Amino acid sequence: MDFTFSEEQAQWREVLRDFARHELAPKYAHWDRTGAFPRDLWRAMGRLGLTGLRVSPSYGGSGADCLTTGIAAEEIARGDFNAAYAVVLNALLAEVLEAHASEVVKREWLAPMAAGERLIAIAITEPGAGSDVAQIAARAERDGDRYVLTGEKSGISLASVADAFVVFAKTQMDAGARGVSAFLVPREAPGVSVHRYEDLGNVAIGRGSVFFERVEVPVDHRIGEENRAFYQLMRGFDLSRVLICLQCLGAAMQSLDETADHVRRRRAFGRPLAQFQGVAFPLVEYHTQIEMIRWFSYRALWLRDRGLPHTKEASMCKWLGPQVAAQAIHECILLHGHYGYTKDLPLEQRLRDVIGLEIGDGTAQTQKIVIAREWLGKAYKPC
Amino acid sequence: MDFTFSEEQAQWREVLRDFARHELAPKYAHWDRTGAFPRDLWRAMGRLGLTGLRVSPSYGGSGADCLTTGIAAEEIARGDFNAAYAVVLNALLAEVLEAHASEVVKREWLAPMAAGERLIAIAITEPGAGSDVAQIAARAERDGDRYVLTGEKSGISLASVADAFVVFAKTQMDAGARGVSAFLVPREAPGVSVHRYEDLGNVAIGRGSVFFERVEVPVDHRIGEENRAFYQLMRGFDLSRVLICLQCLGAAMQSLDETADHVRRRRAFGRPLAQFQGVAFPLVEYHTQIEMIRWFSYRALWLRDRGLPHTKEASMCKWLGPQVAAQAIHECILLHGHYGYTKDLPLEQRLRDVIGLEIGDGTAQTQKIVIAREWLGKAYKPC
Amino acid sequence: MDFTFSEEQAQWREVLRDFARHELAPKYAHWDRTGAFPRDLWRAMGRLGLTGLRVSPSYGGSGADCLTTGIAAEEIARGDFNAAYAVVLNALLAEVLEAHASEVVKREWLAPMAAGERLIAIAITEPGAGSDVAQIAARAERDGDRYVLTGEKSGISLASVADAFVVFAKTQMDAGARGVSAFLVPREAPGVSVHRYEDLGNVAIGRGSVFFERVEVPVDHRIGEENRAFYQLMRGFDLSRVLICLQCLGAAMQSLDETADHVRRRRAFGRPLAQFQGVAFPLVEYHTQIEMIRWFSYRALWLRDRGLPHTKEASMCKWLGPQVAAQAIHECILLHGHYGYTKDLPLEQRLRDVIGLEIGDGTAQTQKIVIAREWLGKAYKPC
Amino acid sequence: MDFTFSEEQAQWREVLRDFARHELAPKYAHWDRTGAFPRDLWRAMGRLGLTGLRVSPSYGGSGADCLTTGIAAEEIARGDFNAAYAVVLNALLAEVLEAHASEVVKREWLAPMAAGERLIAIAITEPGAGSDVAQIAARAERDGDRYVLTGEKSGISLASVADAFVVFAKTQMDAGARGVSAFLVPREAPGVSVHRYEDLGNVAIGRGSVFFERVEVPVDHRIGEENRAFYQLMRGFDLSRVLICLQCLGAAMQSLDETADHVRRRRAFGRPLAQFQGVAFPLVEYHTQIEMIRWFSYRALWLRDRGLPHTKEASMCKWLGPQVAAQAIHECILLHGHYGYTKDLPLEQRLRDVIGLEIGDGTAQTQKIVIAREWLGKAYKPC
Repeated sequence: MDFTFSEEQAQWREVLRDFARHELAPKYAHWDRTGAFPRDLWRAMGRLGLTGLRVSPSYGGSGADCLTTGIAAEEIARGDFNAAYAVVLNALLAEVLEAHASEVVKREWLAPMAAGERLIAIAITEPGAGSDVAQIAARAERDGDRYVLTGEKSGISLASVADAFVVFAKTQMDAGARGVSAFLVPREAPGVSVHRYEDLGNVAIGRGSVFFERVEVPVDHRIGEENRAFYQLMRGFDLSRVLICLQCLGAAMQSLDETADHVRRRRAFGRPLAQFQGVAFPLVEYHTQIEMIRWFSYRALWLRDRGLPHTKEASMCKWLGPQVAAQAIHECILLHGHYGYTKDLPLEQRLRDVIGLEIGDGTAQTQKIVIAREWLGKAYKPC
Repeated sequence: MDFTFSEEQAQWREVLRDFARHELAPKYAHWDRTGAFPRDLWRAMGRLGLTGLRVSPSYGGSGADCLTTGIAAEEIARGDFNAAYAVVLNALLAEVLEAHASEVVKREWLAPMAAGERLIAIAITEPGAGSDVAQIAARAERDGDRYVLTGEKSGISLASVADAFVVFAKTQMDAGARGVSAFLVPREAPGVSVHRYEDLGNVAIGRGSVFFERVEVPVDHRIGEENRAFYQLMRGFDLSRVLICLQCLGAAMQSLDETADHVRRRRAFGRPLAQFQGVAFPLVEYHTQIEMIRWFSYRALWLRDRGLPHTKEASMCKWLGPQVAAQAIHECILLHGHYGYTKDLPLEQRLRDVIGLEIGDGTAQTQKIVIAREWLGKAYKPC
Repeated sequence: MDFTFSEEQAQWREVLRDFARHELAPKYAHWDRTGAFPRDLWRAMGRLGLTGLRVSPSYGGSGADCLTTGIAAEEIARGDFNAAYAVVLNALLAEVLEAHASEVVKREWLAPMAAGERLIAIAITEPGAGSDVAQIAARAERDGDRYVLTGEKSGISLASVADAFVVFAKTQMDAGARGVSAFLVPREAPGVSVHRYEDLGNVAIGRGSVFFERVEVPVDHRIGEENRAFYQLMRGFDLSRVLICLQCLGAAMQSLDETADHVRRRRAFGRPLAQFQGVAFPLVEYHTQIEMIRWFSYRALWLRDRGLPHTKEASMCKWLGPQVAAQAIHECILLHGHYGYTKDLPLEQRLRDVIGLEIGDGTAQTQKIVIAREWLGKAYKPC
Repeated sequence: MDFTFSEEQAQWREVLRDFARHELAPKYAHWDRTGAFPRDLWRAMGRLGLTGLRVSPSYGGSGADCLTTGIAAEEIARGDFNAAYAVVLNALLAEVLEAHASEVVKREWLAPMAAGERLIAIAITEPGAGSDVAQIAARAERDGDRYVLTGEKSGISLASVADAFVVFAKTQMDAGARGVSAFLVPREAPGVSVHRYEDLGNVAIGRGSVFFERVEVPVDHRIGEENRAFYQLMRGFDLSRVLICLQCLGAAMQSLDETADHVRRRRAFGRPLAQFQGVAFPLVEYHTQIEMIRWFSYRALWLRDRGLPHTKEASMCKWLGPQVAAQAIHECILLHGHYGYTKDLPLEQRLRDVIGLEIGDGTAQTQKIVIAREWLGKAYKPC
């Protein structure tokens, strides 16, 4: 065994921590207050290779492994939680598009995405079907060399700013998960419209609903085989689930670092707060849990890099990581007292932001069902 | 024993629940978005007697008992968490002013406060002294028939909208808690200035810092005896701690009711969400805990109404109630999935608001120290 | 409202606490080590009226209300957890038999049970049917003026020492819960045999399996109407669930009292342990939770005394009370360090004993299903 | 990075799991019921190299690395929790003796210990000094070429069966931790006596107090330099803390495996228990936490094998691992219902046994103080 980061990975972490501190952190609150989307920032991340980590060099990407991508999710989130979407979402899209998209889609969309020039969102969830893919109601009907797509997608990250969507729709009704296909649909295609949400957090990400009203999609914009989207593309989520975990842990670790500083300096009853066990112990408890989840996340990414099974491990990371991160940041707010509650500190925004990814990509319940199925056996899957 | 509400209390609850649903709930989000202070609402609550529950009829109040006041805190918070400050803060002020203020202060401030016409804030906390009253640095020096007050108070609820402040200041330096006096200081007095915070929640409450720069305060505006403020006034917090608990529970119960409705209606995998134990059990667990804290809060108020000791019970309510309420609302957000994260539902605001009162009036740590002192004995107080 | 114990109740508590300290506590461990059943102790409790609290004076009982019975469960458990079964089980049996048994059964069994002379056990659970009553396989076939009973009951408290059993059996197959009847079966009846378990705790209670092999039961030993046992008798469990809660809380409170004493006296690093927040805070947290569950239990009993609905409240008490009690006692062991782990202190036995009643009378899962059904509606009962 | 076990390690695990299942598990309960010490078993473990894993081949040991030792602690504990003391305690002793003992002690004690022939116990704790080493009252006075040792040690694992003790005593009074030396004292030395405890668990380990009454110890039986024992020997506890963690996790994982089997087979309401989320989710939650703690423990051992700092990591493992293991086993008992409470299953013994190591080698509070000191800085160590 070897628990050492490579020299490149260690340097990469340093570079990113510096970038996060100096370029991202100072404007983290700005995007939250204004709701503007940081397109220039996205491009700057593109120049660092962050938007194309899992894209191969052939399409302008960095060709980084999953572990290196995880380091990026963690470090970027220390400076700006929402900027880390550029790492996480794009890593998922990169794997899906590179493996299953046509050459034309790769040239037109994958390469500019890797460069940080174009944004792509993933549109699966519907108002009446959360994690139950078999219930998808959006439909794409084949009509010659195109499909005609109609449906409504909800809870879509980047909805209001994306240049295109990867949309899941039924190409065979009544076939459940076996009748689902995926399509790359440009935002500008006639019939596409967007409704932006007002959210508790992740404001810069501009989450919303996307409506497709008889949108024509060329056949070469289908991603993967017809009716096979569920099976070909869902493996990508085993990656994003771990990356989301590290993204949330990054925000929590930064908060713990700041709070550790605070309790070292702030005094009460004649002593530093840090000397009160009622203050130090909760910090220590969160520090412990987060370190353990973090190293387990690295292992999950390493399993993926090796091509070994990691579905169970990914869901373990996804349910526990964001939950503990949210609790830890909540505690950091409380340990700062009156001041922790203000917007002068980034803690309150981090709490609001992290809660978004307790939900996104599957709630804890969804993950626990996956783990139970993998562990106890499919026949015993709870439902 | 008798666990029955009186007929008046039961009717009172009905009236308030109706008021909360129809008058408060529809504008709950409005005050959060705009940051405007609902002065008309405060007056409307005044007409219902809510702003003067603990004020005697001689000064225009309702002369209600503590239990009745608790019901109001709970029910008002179901409609508008921040509106419940009118019940809770004013109850605390009522007890303090009625027992210790001069007749002139009672006529000029207590009576209009009871009517919902004037707002009074309590200013104890300082930047360098959280719950450690002995560290208060604000000072009031006697100069003939006035005091000259200088100091800075931070984390003050209603700071930016109050018409007056009850300010704690040292009248005898180096005497620790034994040298503290309290003063009623009008907002308009020369030398008073306010800095409003931008906060995670409780936005309508306009929390902020208040600065006193050589403010002249007439002797008859002193509340209670000189140097005795800590001993004469702090008992009021045993009331506000229980009321805050019920205020937080009210917001949580309303959230659980809404979520119970949601999981009865929303379906997944062919069944209502409520039939999944992974959904129903967390709801049941919070429902259980909240009912238990709620009835214990009623008992604490009843002890106060009877003049029986209840300091320990009040701190028990204060540490556990707001904490469980925040966790319950957090869970309600998650159980609503993607939609729970939007501002279309009041859940996210309730979470933001409740966190404010996990801190206000003493964090969990402060309460546990009080309980340990009361239970284990003063000699064993942890610090 | 009124949260005052009557003078009789307060005195009753004093008497029992004294009895528990001087008569029960000194031999608590003895019964655990030897496995002998304390029949003399049972009789002594009979003389104090403890074995017939819910039996009316006509049959030699105390005719006490449920609240008074709850006080007894709590106080007796402070001295000897298992002795409190005499209060709890007999209260349940008293209600069932007095309401539904024939006069002959009342004279022959209820009256001696009330006197502490005879022990009766309740036999519902079967190896293949936990809380799922519809799955009962034991059957009783009518044959003239008798029934012939065959079946196996498992996990029966008092199995190895009881003088009789109240047995649930199917009198109509394939009718689910609608085909179940109950019978009083003397231990000495031909065809009855018992297998005693070796258990983690509750050793004195001699839990075991009971086998009925073509046992003849006279018709007048049927308890309640034919096929109606489930509906007529199950209400009794709403009582025992609350009493069990108080029984567990009694053991936990006694443990907290002892641990509070320990941390006041024992010193480390120059200070009493009680002054370390890492020691005092967990104690305070359990003290808080237990007080809240306790007062909620009193309310549940008061609801029953008034004839008001309390099924939901009873299940709330049953899932949370024993769980928190077990956790609290576990923590008390740890806070005693090396010494807490020995059998010189009663803590380890209390933990072993309390775990038995986390299971007995329905696990937490069973209780949460009941609460969900009562709260969310039968249609939404999770299963 | 590399999260792969070497082929040897993987085989080693297989061998041990087999040994645990076939040689240890069948007699696990026997040693608990009889209190006899399994000396033959200890020798059998000696033949497998388990008693000398951290002893170099020069003294008959296996010369295994820490990671390999951790695998052994985990696998042996699956079969017999107490047998794993042979791995854990001996590993600690091996490091201490090999680095600091005289050649004569190594020949006479280390080598036979490695062979499983002789048992050595570690005696640090005293009745009045838990983890506060500076408070040690036992004293050893130099008298020519010997020391005269007097004192009392309490809570000593293996006390009643050990052939020798490594005893910590003050050689310089009033010097706190800077005046402590260690000595190898044979059980047979005149003046040594033992009092065995009756404990909740770890019965085979025969914990007790050891009394030293003017015991003469040759100078060459001193372990390490005079007055330096605290600094030279305490590092060994960073190893035992991680090994104890894995020992506890081994018992918990075996319990989860057995419970997973149970809920797959046992049915209620027409379905396997495993299909109820209220059953599957707690299992999944413990499975997740334990996997994360386990991999973090491997990392801590790897850090030690590399000579890298790991004090903080070791204490993280020690506080969280045993705690979660105890909770998990407790839950497994409950999920088995009535049957889980009997001694027919090993679950109840595992719970009793694991609690012993929540205390041994430092409670959670002690570990959190260590972590706080390492993380927040010595100046901020809570106390």
